Amino acid sequence: MPPAVILLSGGLDSAVTLALARRDGFACHALSFDYGQRHRHELRAADAIASSLGVASHRILALDLRAIGGSALTADIDVPKDATPQATIPITYVPARNLTFLSLATALAEVLYATDIFLGVNAVDFSGYPDCRPDFIHAFQHTANLATKAGAEGTRFRIHTPLIHLSKPDIIRLGHSLNVDFALTSSCYDPSPAGLACARCDACRIRAKGFRDAGLPDPTRYLVP
Amino acid sequence: MPPAVILLSGGLDSAVTLALARRDGFACHALSFDYGQRHRHELRAADAIASSLGVASHRILALDLRAIGGSALTADIDVPKDATPQATIPITYVPARNLTFLSLATALAEVLYATDIFLGVNAVDFSGYPDCRPDFIHAFQHTANLATKAGAEGTRFRIHTPLIHLSKPDIIRLGHSLNVDFALTSSCYDPSPAGLACARCDACRIRAKGFRDAGLPDPTRYLVP
Repeated sequence: MPPAVILLSGGLDSAVTLALARRDGFACHALSFDYGQRHRHELRAADAIASSLGVASHRILALDLRAIGGSALTADIDVPKDATPQATIPITYVPARNLTFLSLATALAEVLYATDIFLGVNAVDFSGYPDCRPDFIHAFQHTANLATKAGAEGTRFRIHTPLIHLSKPDIIRLGHSLNVDFALTSSCYDPSPAGLACARCDACRIRAKGFRDAGLPDPTRYLVP
Repeated sequence: MPPAVILLSGGLDSAVTLALARRDGFACHALSFDYGQRHRHELRAADAIASSLGVASHRILALDLRAIGGSALTADIDVPKDATPQATIPITYVPARNLTFLSLATALAEVLYATDIFLGVNAVDFSGYPDCRPDFIHAFQHTANLATKAGAEGTRFRIHTPLIHLSKPDIIRLGHSLNVDFALTSSCYDPSPAGLACARCDACRIRAKGFRDAGLPDPTRYLVP
């Protein structure tokens, strides 16, 4: 089985992406980041998902983005509890996060002699993040080949974003068909210390609507039922 | 003075780059990485250079690249003590390092409302590293604009690499003219615990030859005089 690097946040989208990579025959090396995120609970979810889906390895890399800040997820800024208007980039945007995470995924891919990197970004229900757009992914792929020894020696990295054009209900249906245990995943930006979801942040709203629209039961444990 | 982010390793090239950015009128925000490098001594040098050249701020960001490895600088691989043949990428290459460091510099620039990022890479005496080439820098700049909220809102990041086409003696002469105190800089990949340079790794060889060719005294403190 060829090796692949899967960026695994602990959320719903990256869990489905991992399940897809596994279905497609890759030996999956999951990579998560302990980046000072408010919702650090997602790392426990990532660990549970990695175990449940049978990865070849799972690394949690420490990277303190609080030293940079600039986001409600990495600085002392409250997570908004009203839906962010469409076509607005929300304050939960973390500066250059996917650029940084993909760079480190490229580094790991190079060490593992992997050419395939999977990222669960989504340009439909993408909550307004610029680094979830196809143009960015294409540009990054080109840059990664130029940035690396592997690229200089002929490797052509491929950034797979299998969810990029799917709606949230489609992603949920797809994960359901692949037996992803959504109860293990965590999407909330501002969970309680015990990991219960707030039900009000953008991530909770998009997730809950996704289960409703997919017609599937939502296994999320909310703080206020 | 407009803000700029300067990637500051503690070596000779990034010190000259910082001096140039300061001469050009930027308020300089230095960014260094504690990435598990064997030559962690360079961070003490970075701190001394930042103070000596009067930066607006200096951050040292922790990022454990030993979790990825794959380099003599971040894994249990010996640093070669013979000159690496030209046109070979040496084992001191750290996978996707400049890609990762530039990504984090972009994040910091975004938070500081800066558009200018300075990197002291050099494509002449570049020790064979692919991520020091102009093609990579151009591709990265394009990607950074697509990766960020600032870019989506019209910012055009500019990656300055003022040393990219200079030889090492030219860089040393330039730094000398800008009053860079080279005694504060540290280039060795494998220094002694006290920070004395080994005199034998690629970085030491290129540095020593640079001072010789520039006809300037080499202030480096070597382990074996």
